[in-house]
Amino acid sequence: MHFDSDYMNICHPLILQRMQELQDQQFSGYGTDSISQSARQKIRALCNCPEAEVQFLCGGTQTNMVMINFLLRSFEGVVCAESGHIAIHESGAIEFTGHKVLPLPAKEGKISAEQVDDYVTTYYSDPNWPHIVPPGMVYITQPTEYGTLYSLSELEQLSAVCRKHSIPLYLDGARLGYALAATNITLADIARLCDAFYIGGTKCGTMFGEAAVIPHPKPDHRFFTHIKRHGALIAKGWTTAMQFDTLLEGDTLTATPYYQGCCHAITEAMRLRKALQDKGYTLPYLSPTNQQFVEVSLSQAEEFRRHLTYDQWEPPHGNRVTIRFATSWATDPHDIDRLIDLL
Amino acid sequence: MHFDSDYMNICHPLILQRMQELQDQQFSGYGTDSISQSARQKIRALCNCPEAEVQFLCGGTQTNMVMINFLLRSFEGVVCAESGHIAIHESGAIEFTGHKVLPLPAKEGKISAEQVDDYVTTYYSDPNWPHIVPPGMVYITQPTEYGTLYSLSELEQLSAVCRKHSIPLYLDGARLGYALAATNITLADIARLCDAFYIGGTKCGTMFGEAAVIPHPKPDHRFFTHIKRHGALIAKGWTTAMQFDTLLEGDTLTATPYYQGCCHAITEAMRLRKALQDKGYTLPYLSPTNQQFVEVSLSQAEEFRRHLTYDQWEPPHGNRVTIRFATSWATDPHDIDRLIDLL
Amino acid sequence: MHFDSDYMNICHPLILQRMQELQDQQFSGYGTDSISQSARQKIRALCNCPEAEVQFLCGGTQTNMVMINFLLRSFEGVVCAESGHIAIHESGAIEFTGHKVLPLPAKEGKISAEQVDDYVTTYYSDPNWPHIVPPGMVYITQPTEYGTLYSLSELEQLSAVCRKHSIPLYLDGARLGYALAATNITLADIARLCDAFYIGGTKCGTMFGEAAVIPHPKPDHRFFTHIKRHGALIAKGWTTAMQFDTLLEGDTLTATPYYQGCCHAITEAMRLRKALQDKGYTLPYLSPTNQQFVEVSLSQAEEFRRHLTYDQWEPPHGNRVTIRFATSWATDPHDIDRLIDLL
Amino acid sequence: MHFDSDYMNICHPLILQRMQELQDQQFSGYGTDSISQSARQKIRALCNCPEAEVQFLCGGTQTNMVMINFLLRSFEGVVCAESGHIAIHESGAIEFTGHKVLPLPAKEGKISAEQVDDYVTTYYSDPNWPHIVPPGMVYITQPTEYGTLYSLSELEQLSAVCRKHSIPLYLDGARLGYALAATNITLADIARLCDAFYIGGTKCGTMFGEAAVIPHPKPDHRFFTHIKRHGALIAKGWTTAMQFDTLLEGDTLTATPYYQGCCHAITEAMRLRKALQDKGYTLPYLSPTNQQFVEVSLSQAEEFRRHLTYDQWEPPHGNRVTIRFATSWATDPHDIDRLIDLL
Repeated sequence: MHFDSDYMNICHPLILQRMQELQDQQFSGYGTDSISQSARQKIRALCNCPEAEVQFLCGGTQTNMVMINFLLRSFEGVVCAESGHIAIHESGAIEFTGHKVLPLPAKEGKISAEQVDDYVTTYYSDPNWPHIVPPGMVYITQPTEYGTLYSLSELEQLSAVCRKHSIPLYLDGARLGYALAATNITLADIARLCDAFYIGGTKCGTMFGEAAVIPHPKPDHRFFTHIKRHGALIAKGWTTAMQFDTLLEGDTLTATPYYQGCCHAITEAMRLRKALQDKGYTLPYLSPTNQQFVEVSLSQAEEFRRHLTYDQWEPPHGNRVTIRFATSWATDPHDIDRLIDLL
Repeated sequence: MHFDSDYMNICHPLILQRMQELQDQQFSGYGTDSISQSARQKIRALCNCPEAEVQFLCGGTQTNMVMINFLLRSFEGVVCAESGHIAIHESGAIEFTGHKVLPLPAKEGKISAEQVDDYVTTYYSDPNWPHIVPPGMVYITQPTEYGTLYSLSELEQLSAVCRKHSIPLYLDGARLGYALAATNITLADIARLCDAFYIGGTKCGTMFGEAAVIPHPKPDHRFFTHIKRHGALIAKGWTTAMQFDTLLEGDTLTATPYYQGCCHAITEAMRLRKALQDKGYTLPYLSPTNQQFVEVSLSQAEEFRRHLTYDQWEPPHGNRVTIRFATSWATDPHDIDRLIDLL
Repeated sequence: MHFDSDYMNICHPLILQRMQELQDQQFSGYGTDSISQSARQKIRALCNCPEAEVQFLCGGTQTNMVMINFLLRSFEGVVCAESGHIAIHESGAIEFTGHKVLPLPAKEGKISAEQVDDYVTTYYSDPNWPHIVPPGMVYITQPTEYGTLYSLSELEQLSAVCRKHSIPLYLDGARLGYALAATNITLADIARLCDAFYIGGTKCGTMFGEAAVIPHPKPDHRFFTHIKRHGALIAKGWTTAMQFDTLLEGDTLTATPYYQGCCHAITEAMRLRKALQDKGYTLPYLSPTNQQFVEVSLSQAEEFRRHLTYDQWEPPHGNRVTIRFATSWATDPHDIDRLIDLL
Repeated sequence: MHFDSDYMNICHPLILQRMQELQDQQFSGYGTDSISQSARQKIRALCNCPEAEVQFLCGGTQTNMVMINFLLRSFEGVVCAESGHIAIHESGAIEFTGHKVLPLPAKEGKISAEQVDDYVTTYYSDPNWPHIVPPGMVYITQPTEYGTLYSLSELEQLSAVCRKHSIPLYLDGARLGYALAATNITLADIARLCDAFYIGGTKCGTMFGEAAVIPHPKPDHRFFTHIKRHGALIAKGWTTAMQFDTLLEGDTLTATPYYQGCCHAITEAMRLRKALQDKGYTLPYLSPTNQQFVEVSLSQAEEFRRHLTYDQWEPPHGNRVTIRFATSWATDPHDIDRLIDLL
């Protein structure tokens, strides 16, 4: 049994089926094809943004790098939670593009509108501000790296404070499907409140690929050339688009295989969470999504390792260690049963 | 009928079949899995380099960017043909990483060992050389952007001159399969003569992905972190590796589906080339591989466009234009028949 | 005798005198002082641009790097003469900031409006243009690296073509004083025709420093922070400004020590040029400014070396070599007499 | 009266005198001259490192950027105090070169060997370490941004821990003269313990310029080209070198004008510190060097402002604010008397 992550199975069966169907067809390169166009239109409709720029990239770190470098002016930095993926786990990809990451203390992986407001205000009240990297945008993850969620109200407040200071709000949606499935926040809400975001594929059912969305693009932005320059454009762009085109088929968000697959993961994760709580385990974050974190002793961790795989989240502290169990659209409920039995 | 390029079909049928077989299995992330290990071992064996570093990336521009930035010291530039992909069609991805591209006049897309020798020698004889970007490596494409090929002897000479000047030789193998199929140069030859190269997937039968090879890596090179920092690492790395693992199955290079698929493309391209020559068309380059370039009038180009698609290679010169027909592992021989009938 | 360059003497005597006068005074840092303000006002008046942004930087390569990276969008390249300083002699400083240098064939160091127009037009007529680095600005040097000059009419044509294509025109004025002294083109002309430029100090009489000018800056451009981020801001910015404040004192350009010092250099250079021509030397470029290039045999070059220093411009071709004699604001006329005697 | 900083006077009188003496002489460019050679030799002798690489740059931020980008491999980050100059006041110059700044909690501006050891050890014990920016060097300031000092023992411990982990130790000596004057740590000690450092000029008596030192350079390091590529090389390099050549004249460090000028600043700063303490002011850091920080009420700060200038260090906290008084080699003792009277 494997609970390391949500990117262990190849892809949603509907995508495999679509691949078979397409195998004798030919499509033009670099996203100029009809399937890419169809996928873009589905995303625009779900976002309620008919003019949105939509491009399909390969992975999460790449998408963050491309988008942040697109949204910032060269001398600006990106404000984020200190636990944000870009702050820690991207090997300096943001700095590679010349930008400073400006981490704020996080609470369960989240930052607040008030923190952002304070940071920007304090920045401009510093007598030396012209010598200091200015906050040029805000980066959040939904769900966060700890599986927690921003409420609609929190997102609205973050959006308002960003607009007050004229800096874009960007949402890293590597696991966005699980957030959509766990709340009633819609893609249209996200598109209304954020200046850019991506709809995660890799962790939510595709084989690879993320859909980058700019709800209200400026004219002549040359986003295509920008993407290519980062090495992020692939020749068979339609193979990425096709995966989103397949998973986002449906009249409404809730009718899509994307949403439904993620709902399954949430159901299984909640069963596991309840069992953990019932058995008295220490859950450092109360995650409503598909990632469940548990603090255990090193010997317990060792014991688990004999039966299954999980993700060790951080270096141990003393003889305690925090581990993560992740469910996904592909999780077998019997595996969750067996895991619960082992607790 | 579509002859725009060799990246129009989804992927080799054996890959689709393998995907089906793997759909209920789970693999760990970032290339730490058993399939990635198997694919690496096959490549090491074909290259006759048991210690080779092998990593799987997403696309050609990305791989060039990652590899060139890995091979060069920060202040060095990369010598290449003026028609080289990195010099023109990568939107400045090499400059994005801080390196100057140093183009040499090319003959049918190729540069010679003598040119490289002259360039390096002249560089160090310039009284102002410390103020000038030093040639830090040589980049070649095999086949070239015009479908032409370096002979084994030419490769040996380039390799020798690079080693004489202690600068690495890097080979962009976006279409390497077609070069292997059109000559008796082997992967072991490439690995013996080059300091780094990649085995192209996207244009030779995979859905996406390229296999970057460093035949004799230095210890502690942190190539993994380097890749991640360029946004070039995907979570489900095993899905890329799996495609190479499938196409490179076989006791020898010639027994692999990779090689055999490319042989098919060459056969069809040679049929087309003969027909073009027989009918008196002007072929600006005598390409022995799957890309065939033809100079036609604008009205002929227009006429072709009514029946099929092709790639217009450059802006027209007067009322003449050079167009490209590409075959691939997936080309239907009947399409070539029909194209020949249209000539 | 030293004719290597125009940057061999410490600085104009008026600057040394001003330093003495200021030695017990104190000024605030980073250009916030009254002398910097005075120097900026003088430059604005000479440029007839009361709102111009003026900043004082340390050297020419630095100023080119800072200005080009400021004027270009991240994915754009800079069009210039193939002999342009940024294309060759800056060790890749432009590429360091991520931009491709796009060289055009040059005639006596110059490019024409027609060439620029063709380049931009051809770019957008290439079917693959979105994959190619777009021309985002034009860089010229006045005088050029060969001492030649753009006429007012040529500058007007270049300016017009840049405005037609909405790309900025930037003028590298490392030796601008010598161009001003050799023509009746004024700083107001330069400011009217260029979108950015710099007034060279180091080669025209200051100890160090260049004055970067943006005639019509956009609001909120954060140029100060941009400069600092390139390591180009020095704490005692007023010491740079003070040198321009001293050399640009005067009611009109022609009344300034800056202009007059450069006039002296031109006078001496013209005496030398006439002597070279009279004695039948081969002058590859007919330079009207302070740099005079002569093609000589290696043995002549050797013979000169016994009596004086000069700059060898390029690697020898066969037994011929091009050397440069430079005069400056500080050239002793007796040295020119002695050099003429040696010819 | 001006106590804002130590960079308000033009330069040490001996430098002005030397400039006068040199005004009719000519020197070759880019540091190839005899004065640069002389200055290098003096620094090598004082450092007891006859093979040291010594280059003269323009300012502190530039030198940090050039040196850190030289010492790090492309994917590595630089460990420093959270209050370190590179972490805050350089507008992202380090990130501009692609490197992440890795700040540690600081105590009076300092970090300890134990902190560095923990950081490196923890890094490699993180199961995800290959995805995280590795600590590639350590940056310290001496004196720190708060005027405090590392003791010889603390430097030795930092050096030892860096060598244990094979990462270089780099010392930012923007105000190094004041540290040398306040302790018995010598340049030879610094050169023995650090892998690179710079001897600050701008804040210690020169008009501009810093002397970058690599005690034990590797062969073929192309440091010159590296500097040029950062726009950090000026044509009249000898004017920078000349200032160090003048201030470092003397048989021993303590005999140099550089040392003696800084001693004067320390004497005056200690008089001020004693007066502040005697009158019951709150000194947040007990600085033994030329920067003295005092916490005052906003109304006191306002009152001071009527008589003199100082540096406001940070945004106010409530109605309290920390301000800085800086002395320098040029401080008039009567000004300190007058300031003490105002307390």
